[in-house]
Amino acid sequence: MKNASPIITLTTDFGLHDPYVGQMKGALLSVCPQARLVDITHHVPPWNIAAAAVTLATSYLSFPPHSVHLVVVDPGVGGERAIVAAQGREHFFVCPDNGILSLLLEEGHLERVYQIEASLTRKDISPTFHGRDIMAPAAAALAAGKALAALGPSLPLTGLKQLHFPLLNPGQGALEAQVLSIDHFGNIRTTVRTGQNAIRWTEGAWIRVGGQKITTCGSNYSQVGRGELLVLIDSSGFVEIAANQASAAAFLGCSPGDPVVLFVP
Amino acid sequence: MKNASPIITLTTDFGLHDPYVGQMKGALLSVCPQARLVDITHHVPPWNIAAAAVTLATSYLSFPPHSVHLVVVDPGVGGERAIVAAQGREHFFVCPDNGILSLLLEEGHLERVYQIEASLTRKDISPTFHGRDIMAPAAAALAAGKALAALGPSLPLTGLKQLHFPLLNPGQGALEAQVLSIDHFGNIRTTVRTGQNAIRWTEGAWIRVGGQKITTCGSNYSQVGRGELLVLIDSSGFVEIAANQASAAAFLGCSPGDPVVLFVP
Amino acid sequence: MKNASPIITLTTDFGLHDPYVGQMKGALLSVCPQARLVDITHHVPPWNIAAAAVTLATSYLSFPPHSVHLVVVDPGVGGERAIVAAQGREHFFVCPDNGILSLLLEEGHLERVYQIEASLTRKDISPTFHGRDIMAPAAAALAAGKALAALGPSLPLTGLKQLHFPLLNPGQGALEAQVLSIDHFGNIRTTVRTGQNAIRWTEGAWIRVGGQKITTCGSNYSQVGRGELLVLIDSSGFVEIAANQASAAAFLGCSPGDPVVLFVP
Repeated sequence: MKNASPIITLTTDFGLHDPYVGQMKGALLSVCPQARLVDITHHVPPWNIAAAAVTLATSYLSFPPHSVHLVVVDPGVGGERAIVAAQGREHFFVCPDNGILSLLLEEGHLERVYQIEASLTRKDISPTFHGRDIMAPAAAALAAGKALAALGPSLPLTGLKQLHFPLLNPGQGALEAQVLSIDHFGNIRTTVRTGQNAIRWTEGAWIRVGGQKITTCGSNYSQVGRGELLVLIDSSGFVEIAANQASAAAFLGCSPGDPVVLFVP
Repeated sequence: MKNASPIITLTTDFGLHDPYVGQMKGALLSVCPQARLVDITHHVPPWNIAAAAVTLATSYLSFPPHSVHLVVVDPGVGGERAIVAAQGREHFFVCPDNGILSLLLEEGHLERVYQIEASLTRKDISPTFHGRDIMAPAAAALAAGKALAALGPSLPLTGLKQLHFPLLNPGQGALEAQVLSIDHFGNIRTTVRTGQNAIRWTEGAWIRVGGQKITTCGSNYSQVGRGELLVLIDSSGFVEIAANQASAAAFLGCSPGDPVVLFVP
Repeated sequence: MKNASPIITLTTDFGLHDPYVGQMKGALLSVCPQARLVDITHHVPPWNIAAAAVTLATSYLSFPPHSVHLVVVDPGVGGERAIVAAQGREHFFVCPDNGILSLLLEEGHLERVYQIEASLTRKDISPTFHGRDIMAPAAAALAAGKALAALGPSLPLTGLKQLHFPLLNPGQGALEAQVLSIDHFGNIRTTVRTGQNAIRWTEGAWIRVGGQKITTCGSNYSQVGRGELLVLIDSSGFVEIAANQASAAAFLGCSPGDPVVLFVP
């Protein structure tokens, strides 16, 4: 990989109140001054590896090939978990081996994975900030053109830590699903994914969440009146319950993990 | 327009918790890898087109000529509203045609506007994320040097959706205004604008908001004691009620839309 | 200083809801189009100069030499306080002279300081936004290669405004300290700093905060069970009380300024 202006994306649970993201960007630019740093989000819920995995899987293909994706949600920092660098679909990934790569692995998007052995640049490594002191230098080295294999020994893909994701595909009959997450607008993402295929919403289909049955399906919010609920496929392919210019989650009073039933006759 | 490192600014109501802004930046860099992406804000209140219009109008001239300003506050996404690209004062604008350009239009800052017909790059367009799938590719194409006219058919300026803004100019006597917005510091921006000219604050002038009459006018916060209120002209030319190192809005208990009376004898 | 792609970091108390940060970035890019802008944080607590000083001191060395660090926490904007540009350890700093540089000065990191006389670029300077209208143009000029001495007259280092920081070094016996700050994860940073040397945690040592005595010391969070408390040295060298995957601050109910006692026998 050679690139005049390589992209490194950042996904963390650091929030933006502390200088941690800034310090990590300093570490990235110290190794690869020409990198373009792009925040995906720093608001993964603290220590929530599963949420980080979904964020990564739904976002990385928005970026050009050869981008390096640094994901630091690392509750086990300083402990036993390994740090890895992986490649798949012409993208690179650097993160702790704690399940962040689960969805990519499950979907067959990964090709190679290596264990990062230690910091490439720093002698003093904080035992609580491997994002800054080990992962950022490694991600920046990849962005600067270093070979993946030069970071450490190869690992078998099957050796990666795997989380169980309760993601479901819609079919006929009743499907017991869950609320996966709530976005900034109050849109409710369910654990039901449609992949390339839209859900087959026929007469008599419904979804139930927060004690309410919704029977209206649409493709965009403006197909219902302001404040009204509908079901649609969100921009990453998940079945979503939304309201037109209002928060469906606030209206229905629901939270991640709440039960959802989808019925297609 | 040819530029080694063109600027694209981003203004949205997406917030920063979800990966939407990151996905849109990926789409921008996929089309124009050399672009410099600068966030204006992603915290426009959800679906608040008027607030987006004020943000754009008060911010775009801080950037160098030839900047492209992408504004995605798009409650009508996927519906009837058009998507437009406009030019004025050597700047470019890409947004839905829902009133975001109202203030620029009202002030005579716009010269040309074109309707964007479809995505320049994506075959699969999400009906709920035209920011990522249509507007970002168009903004990036402009930044990369594509001609405005190549994006779609020309529109008459008078065809643009226009919002009514209750912005006022101070004069003599009593002026009935409103709270336009509250900033991070609790400073209260009113709907009274001074343009280039400072307000003529003479003996006997006052402003009333939240049940309190303020008679002190200054040019900066440190002209009153800590926690004391004063009236001044803010950094974008609006009449503002502020407190020195304290939140005027919290003290006065006021919110956007609250009545303000300004009296100049 | 000559640099193809100079770095300018930004630290402010502006928050991200208003367009102030975006406007300041526009002003920076107007003077130095090739600058790389990196946010350290915009969530310094409003008007909190001491917090800005800690943020700067703990972050700037993460960046490559020749970076320019722009820090705008400026409660005295428009008033008497000077605006300064300083140099130390091959880094540059631009900020109001209100104590932001205190820690750097105290630690002997500063070499030269100059008073910035007025905006290098703008004729109309808002009396409430010198960050955008004076400091950003000055920081960008430095990034573009302008000499520090060209910004204004030299000042003696001893003339800089100095804040008192209650930072302490651990020794033997009981040390009365305070909570310095709470981070996004609820980790409690105390005013006790260890510098290069780890705290000597021997049998019988304890720390007391929020009415609770903690006797477990570790190097990383995973050394205790989930939700359990421990003492460690944080990634910037401060003594910290943390919990494994939980908020120590919420558990102990503590806030900045609360008393902390550290006892080492």
